[in-house]
Amino acid sequence: MTDNGCVFCAIVNGRADASVVHEDDSVIAFMDLQPVTPGHVLVIPKAHAVGLEDLQEGVGVAVWKVAHQLGRALRRSGLRCEGVNLFLADGEAAFQEVFHVHLHVFPRFAGDPFRMEADWRVQERAQLDRAAAAVRGGLAALDAG
Amino acid sequence: MTDNGCVFCAIVNGRADASVVHEDDSVIAFMDLQPVTPGHVLVIPKAHAVGLEDLQEGVGVAVWKVAHQLGRALRRSGLRCEGVNLFLADGEAAFQEVFHVHLHVFPRFAGDPFRMEADWRVQERAQLDRAAAAVRGGLAALDAG
Ligand SMILES: [Zn+2]
Ligand SMILES: [Zn+2]
Repeated sequence: MTDNGCVFCAIVNGRADASVVHEDDSVIAFMDLQPVTPGHVLVIPKAHAVGLEDLQEGVGVAVWKVAHQLGRALRRSGLRCEGVNLFLADGEAAFQEVFHVHLHVFPRFAGDPFRMEADWRVQERAQLDRAAAAVRGGLAALDAG
Repeated sequence: MTDNGCVFCAIVNGRADASVVHEDDSVIAFMDLQPVTPGHVLVIPKAHAVGLEDLQEGVGVAVWKVAHQLGRALRRSGLRCEGVNLFLADGEAAFQEVFHVHLHVFPRFAGDPFRMEADWRVQERAQLDRAAAAVRGGLAALDAG
């Protein structure tokens, strides 16, 4: 096996250090080097996939199941955890930095340093309905493909 | 069926408006009223669950599968989409605002208004290993429960 320059494949192949919390046939989970909060875990498929587009459905399900369990485990870990976020970045425009798909799971607590910003304006129903029609068109294109 | 004051249960039960993009036996997906970007969808289980703790594993998998498809559909929707984020907030400390579990799926593009902030400092291996041990303890507690 080669890592093809992918740092997460290097972890899967045992050629890079990681603080592992879970490993099974298709998934490995380890601590993020730059945690938002202590306990920040990354869940990845062992088989290299860049993002949602080339991630096999069943492998994605395996990643999700581990993330769901880890979210519940964080609340039983003794680490400070009053809430949990799951986050996935698919593509550079979505803030993906390592191009091996990964699902972030991290604990949250009052006063922690994580913040999100956006323009949270309420949209009118007509705008939402137009967007919904476009999304349904995307689903139909996916089915047809 | 009553909605128990839950706005998402009201949508499931047809007593509140929503711009729906997908519906099946266990899951419904509709446009977020306050989209980060046009195309921002929420995927929810039809059965009320507050968060990861009371979400049945199989229902969570169904939610994930729809979100995975929607992430791919957004890239085929004609809406501006150079990337996709998935986000879930479990608990008020994690920015959950509607206490019926929901998985956000939204398109991203260069120059969009979404930003995240945190203290991204690289942690030392010893700190990461201590956090990993705590998380493994949480997983063990979950298994034992
Ligand atoms: Zn890789
Ligand atoms: Zn509800």
